[in-house]
Amino acid sequence: MTAARINADRLWQRLMALAEIGDTGDGGVNRQALTAGEIDAWRLLLRWGAESGLEASTDAAANLFLTLRGRERTIAPALIGSHVDTQPTGGKFDGAFGVLAALEVVTTMAERGVVPARDVTVVAWCNEEGSRFAPGMTGSEAFAGVRGMVAIRAIRDSTRVSVGEAIDTLHAAFPDLPRRPLGFTPAFYIEPHIEQATLLEKAGVPIGIVTGIQGKITWEITIAGEEGHAGTLVMALRRDALASFARMASAMQAQVGDADPIVKFTIGMIRVSPNAPSVVPGRVVFRIDLRHPDNAALQAHGARVESIARNLAAPCDVTVTRLVDAPSNAFDAGLQQRIEATATRLGYASMPLLSAAGHDSRYMAPLCPSAMIFVPCRDGVSHSPLEWAEPEDLAAGAAVLAEMVAELTA
Amino acid sequence: MTAARINADRLWQRLMALAEIGDTGDGGVNRQALTAGEIDAWRLLLRWGAESGLEASTDAAANLFLTLRGRERTIAPALIGSHVDTQPTGGKFDGAFGVLAALEVVTTMAERGVVPARDVTVVAWCNEEGSRFAPGMTGSEAFAGVRGMVAIRAIRDSTRVSVGEAIDTLHAAFPDLPRRPLGFTPAFYIEPHIEQATLLEKAGVPIGIVTGIQGKITWEITIAGEEGHAGTLVMALRRDALASFARMASAMQAQVGDADPIVKFTIGMIRVSPNAPSVVPGRVVFRIDLRHPDNAALQAHGARVESIARNLAAPCDVTVTRLVDAPSNAFDAGLQQRIEATATRLGYASMPLLSAAGHDSRYMAPLCPSAMIFVPCRDGVSHSPLEWAEPEDLAAGAAVLAEMVAELTA
Repeated sequence: MTAARINADRLWQRLMALAEIGDTGDGGVNRQALTAGEIDAWRLLLRWGAESGLEASTDAAANLFLTLRGRERTIAPALIGSHVDTQPTGGKFDGAFGVLAALEVVTTMAERGVVPARDVTVVAWCNEEGSRFAPGMTGSEAFAGVRGMVAIRAIRDSTRVSVGEAIDTLHAAFPDLPRRPLGFTPAFYIEPHIEQATLLEKAGVPIGIVTGIQGKITWEITIAGEEGHAGTLVMALRRDALASFARMASAMQAQVGDADPIVKFTIGMIRVSPNAPSVVPGRVVFRIDLRHPDNAALQAHGARVESIARNLAAPCDVTVTRLVDAPSNAFDAGLQQRIEATATRLGYASMPLLSAAGHDSRYMAPLCPSAMIFVPCRDGVSHSPLEWAEPEDLAAGAAVLAEMVAELTA
Repeated sequence: MTAARINADRLWQRLMALAEIGDTGDGGVNRQALTAGEIDAWRLLLRWGAESGLEASTDAAANLFLTLRGRERTIAPALIGSHVDTQPTGGKFDGAFGVLAALEVVTTMAERGVVPARDVTVVAWCNEEGSRFAPGMTGSEAFAGVRGMVAIRAIRDSTRVSVGEAIDTLHAAFPDLPRRPLGFTPAFYIEPHIEQATLLEKAGVPIGIVTGIQGKITWEITIAGEEGHAGTLVMALRRDALASFARMASAMQAQVGDADPIVKFTIGMIRVSPNAPSVVPGRVVFRIDLRHPDNAALQAHGARVESIARNLAAPCDVTVTRLVDAPSNAFDAGLQQRIEATATRLGYASMPLLSAAGHDSRYMAPLCPSAMIFVPCRDGVSHSPLEWAEPEDLAAGAAVLAEMVAELTA
């Protein structure tokens, strides 16, 4: 039964082919949002879609859609997919697996001449990772109406290029690609993804039924001090922004990061000005990423982060801005039961788990019944050239998705 | 007598004209070593030199020389000057004053038809600041034989351009400029400079007799951790290079920077990889600048810095490399007495002081009798757009230099 629903070899070959775009030479992939690499990735997806007669389109947020036409075209379509952008030091599977598993599902349906009751649309969301343009998930946020396109287009990368300019460049590369209105209400949304943690691998279980996504708060914090000469300015008169950062960051690590076995606390990005060896730093801007599955604990840790930033900034000034404040969410119970039943029927073990990482499905969950299917990845490693998933686990995830889509659009 | 020796108006006009090259629009100057800005600055200096009949030349280290010919051309020349490169957020006077005061001295001599007993050579040393290519003072180091050109040419900036490539680009812009052998033994070296501290300003004294330069140690420290996903990698398993940096930097600040009223401790530069908001940082490289006038205290603080780096790196690995290890030095006693006597004769108050900042004269002092003349700068501010010196103080410094050169080359 499984074999009929998808072609596991083709899925693997396509994953490897996509991974060549942005190949970093060490097993990793650097294909950040709205870069030339993403344009090449779209070109490949569009070619594969055209081979199966899929209808391609994009929207103002630079999401890419590939639709298998259904019998009734005016009712809500089924939506399945993920994203194809990566971190600068990303891997071959994060995001790419969800898009290519979804593509494999409709490709197989098209091959077999299946015409579903409703459209089945594969989506590749724009800028999930948020590394070039932070914060991320701008495609699903715009689609779900969480954030407007004016705000999203104004975001700039480190070289001052805006999302708006980068989207226009991407769209200009595909002048014949139809533009659809931004956002619609799908019949349901299902996103396959690698787990990015070790629960499935340790349990030896190929299918994870995602119960929800842990809550997340991110900040941009700016420390404003004063530049000076490293050899002459006496210590007592300094307003060294990097010294304030070090005090703050080590206190946050001790009082938040190391104080709770469940919390995840990360300072991933810092910019120092002027960042010259013999100049006292006048300005530091940095990002904090805080996550916790319990919303009360998340908010308590968040309050602690902000009070440390404010209390330890002196003699510098500090500005604390929350960029993302997303509580934990729960996925559709009916779809969770259906993943379990489908996996069982196909002979795969499954288990419920919470997603520690954020996904575009966070923004789809309030819009329509939504779910995520996780598959194991080696040692839980992700956002790294070492990211790896076994072909049979990827095939299992795609097979469960194929079975569910077939049933729900029969 | 003063009025006859230099033209204070011309000195000021030339300072303002040179500051237009690299003008940052906020009063500051960004004219880093071996950039297009430095090429433009050379063009201006060469034009002014040619107007006074000076003999121009350069050497393998990209130092620029402008020589007023003496009666006896085979004996050791007098050498006076400083540097024209700036920090990225530099000012109008640091370095530029020393070069233009020296140029003013020989320009006035040429105007008056003075032919000195020996050549008087104005020098603009290459890459004093060490911001684009670190560590700095490569021009005087190479000239004095402290460091070889192979090592210097191999230094790279953040875009991977080497000093060697940048020197070749600079030299290619001046195909007719004669090349002289690297290094010679001058009769003496005198460098005028703004104080970059507040002793002269607070005392209301225009002429500082520099007794020596405080010792300096710089390090590059590399922390090697492991990248991971900010949302999924549990805290206990992380090897977060930026968290290790924060622990180290705050301990160094507390135990070295804040523990001694005389020490200067600065972390001015940091590079984080991959520097993405939701990736646990796998690698941090940073620079430390430590200074102290007392050599025993300098070495004791240095040992403390290194032991903190090694003890607080875990669970990451650390590599500690000393880039510069320069003890405090003393300037020539005879030249110090001559500065004092000359200032007194010209009617300027003077006082001895130690230089907290490093200068090229550090490397000239072992080579020949060397000295520095300091003039006040406002609030001691330097390496900043707010850097400012009063025209009359600059004129006083140049007048003392002119008088000394006239006497020593009569």
